Amino acid sequence: MTLINEHYNKLNASYLFSQIRKRVIQFETEKPEARVIKLGIGDVTRPLPTVAIDAFHKAIDEMANPGTFRGYGPEQGYQFLREAIAEIDFHRRGVTHITADDIFVSDGAKCDCANIQEIFSLDSTIAISDPVYPVYLDSNVMAGRSGNFENGRYQGIHYLECTESNHFSPSIPDVPLDLIYLCSPNNPTGTVLSKEDLKAWVDYALKNNSIILFDAAYETFIRDDNLPRSIFEIEGAEKVAIEFRSLSKSAGFTGIRCAFTVIHKDCMGRTSSGKEISIRDLWFRRQSTKFNGVSYPVQQATKAVYTEEGQAEVKVLTDYYLKNASLLRTALEGKGLTVFGGIDSPYLWTKTNRDSWEFFDDMLQNYGLVCTPGVGFGNCGQGYVRFSAFNEREAIVEASERLAAG
Amino acid sequence: MTLINEHYNKLNASYLFSQIRKRVIQFETEKPEARVIKLGIGDVTRPLPTVAIDAFHKAIDEMANPGTFRGYGPEQGYQFLREAIAEIDFHRRGVTHITADDIFVSDGAKCDCANIQEIFSLDSTIAISDPVYPVYLDSNVMAGRSGNFENGRYQGIHYLECTESNHFSPSIPDVPLDLIYLCSPNNPTGTVLSKEDLKAWVDYALKNNSIILFDAAYETFIRDDNLPRSIFEIEGAEKVAIEFRSLSKSAGFTGIRCAFTVIHKDCMGRTSSGKEISIRDLWFRRQSTKFNGVSYPVQQATKAVYTEEGQAEVKVLTDYYLKNASLLRTALEGKGLTVFGGIDSPYLWTKTNRDSWEFFDDMLQNYGLVCTPGVGFGNCGQGYVRFSAFNEREAIVEASERLAAG
Repeated sequence: MTLINEHYNKLNASYLFSQIRKRVIQFETEKPEARVIKLGIGDVTRPLPTVAIDAFHKAIDEMANPGTFRGYGPEQGYQFLREAIAEIDFHRRGVTHITADDIFVSDGAKCDCANIQEIFSLDSTIAISDPVYPVYLDSNVMAGRSGNFENGRYQGIHYLECTESNHFSPSIPDVPLDLIYLCSPNNPTGTVLSKEDLKAWVDYALKNNSIILFDAAYETFIRDDNLPRSIFEIEGAEKVAIEFRSLSKSAGFTGIRCAFTVIHKDCMGRTSSGKEISIRDLWFRRQSTKFNGVSYPVQQATKAVYTEEGQAEVKVLTDYYLKNASLLRTALEGKGLTVFGGIDSPYLWTKTNRDSWEFFDDMLQNYGLVCTPGVGFGNCGQGYVRFSAFNEREAIVEASERLAAG
Repeated sequence: MTLINEHYNKLNASYLFSQIRKRVIQFETEKPEARVIKLGIGDVTRPLPTVAIDAFHKAIDEMANPGTFRGYGPEQGYQFLREAIAEIDFHRRGVTHITADDIFVSDGAKCDCANIQEIFSLDSTIAISDPVYPVYLDSNVMAGRSGNFENGRYQGIHYLECTESNHFSPSIPDVPLDLIYLCSPNNPTGTVLSKEDLKAWVDYALKNNSIILFDAAYETFIRDDNLPRSIFEIEGAEKVAIEFRSLSKSAGFTGIRCAFTVIHKDCMGRTSSGKEISIRDLWFRRQSTKFNGVSYPVQQATKAVYTEEGQAEVKVLTDYYLKNASLLRTALEGKGLTVFGGIDSPYLWTKTNRDSWEFFDDMLQNYGLVCTPGVGFGNCGQGYVRFSAFNEREAIVEASERLAAG
């Protein structure tokens, strides 16, 4: 008799994006002349950097020739790519203690964020922001680290409330917790944690032997040099933090799939008898057993992004979306709305002064604009919506004009 | 205090491939003039099909243009690819009840085989062949479904012995078990299960409400039309089986990464209270939460493999390796060795008449050939080695000549 993993039954069947889709389809059916502008989902629209395109073609030609053909690559990613990442993302920014050995190339930060919990005890206590990107939560629920879903929350999960009163920067808990998920620049609030914020978390983790799971998928949108792009800029973080990075939003790789996870050799977990175990070794074992590396041409395309030319193209791409964010912010503020985020971040967390879904319907019905109701990201998201700056400029300009005219 | 998943400590640190590497390096250092021929690892050497190369290039050009650029795709894979697979791999072979909705495109059969156990109860009992591809075993050990490793076996796992006396076809257990891993054509033994063999397993699974996890990664090597390429050729299998397929060995995609898993809508698991739950829905939920789909250009390259031209190229590629297998088989038999497999399969399971490692050393020292000691795949592999036919023809011819001369 094959029994299923019944923890799946605890999952709050999230109707967020299907509900959005349903309402948009209904609106488009009723008003076929309205051209709906989608500012809901965080998906890029700009083409890949030209250096990535060129490198991609070249690598494919290598696969057409027996002399240059490549079969299985290293599960952790090719050395040429891991070295380029270590150099450009870390060494040049003064984070010299991160090396190629600490970098694990993967097909997505979503996969890594979801899979990382496997290497920890099922008894681990979990701290998660509210509002939050749902993958951190769902992957732990599926593994059995929560109770049932009641009143918008899973029992047994420690929620870190992010509200206007704490500037959407979660407060340090007064109890010891094991695994702490942080995301900066934040999805959905657009908040960027300061060095002081991160230092407080690192100190907490060092004191309590916690591990911080730091999602930095949007770090390339940071323009303020005082803001940390990596948690490893904080002293001691290498002992207590795992960082997730992605090419999805920086180089427009959402359809290409490349990301990486960074774990320093000094990052340690413990057995129940107190023996220290290298987290990097555990992740290496997990990835070697359950993953077979990223497509070789994708790794070459990614390597091209990690060149001077590639970095310049990433700057142009992210500037484009940041300009979108700025235009949207101005337009929303022009309607008297309070907007958080959208600076050093592609997301605008907009205060609705009423129910998230009511505001969503207003935007859809009266402006033909699609946003994401904040309550879909957690209880603390009620009264907010997320606007995404990922769209073509023409669409953003038209959205701004509709808001101004409405 | 962050505790690790201590089940990882139970893992038998497999020194198989690192031990092989060590001995090969030592040999090459001592005899730099000897040109070692590697017949150990199952990695392809032939270039990609030309249709795949062309489609790959075309898809990359789409990603360079804002009008044709694609961001996130469906987690399950693009409809165009799932329909092509359903048509060519199933409908044309008379398996008409498998549809595009049953197919989940992924980045590797290794990932899918390793991840599938997550959707089942941790209390599930596990049946695994001996010898076996280690991923089935390791992924369950890591999840906590075994006891400690003792005398070459994990406690609590039901081993299905595959020996000469049962023609390397595992015998049906006399106890009910939940999850049964089968692989045909088999890695490492090269055995192909017959329709009668599979029917007995399907009947067993139907009777006991078991689920068969059927790894068909090598099905394109089958030339005998009487042998089943899919477990879904067996009546009732759709209710009790999950099938794993891969482009790695068929189209030479080990470095490109594309595979798929097939689960029919009628495949059901149960909750502890006896309620039926769709396994396909559970896997969909797992993949949507923890995976972000396969790279779009890779899916287009795969789609090209699923055309008339592509299928013809796959035939040429797999014929090439089958011819290699045939040459190797003749050479090994010429030395008086008994060889199993290597027909309808790229692996030759060779009886050594002595310790696997002793034979390995003999092959390395006296012939400059690398094979894989069978004992590395399980206790029943003692006294065997696996030769892989994945290499260039020149290397196979030279290996054969060395064997004949030695």
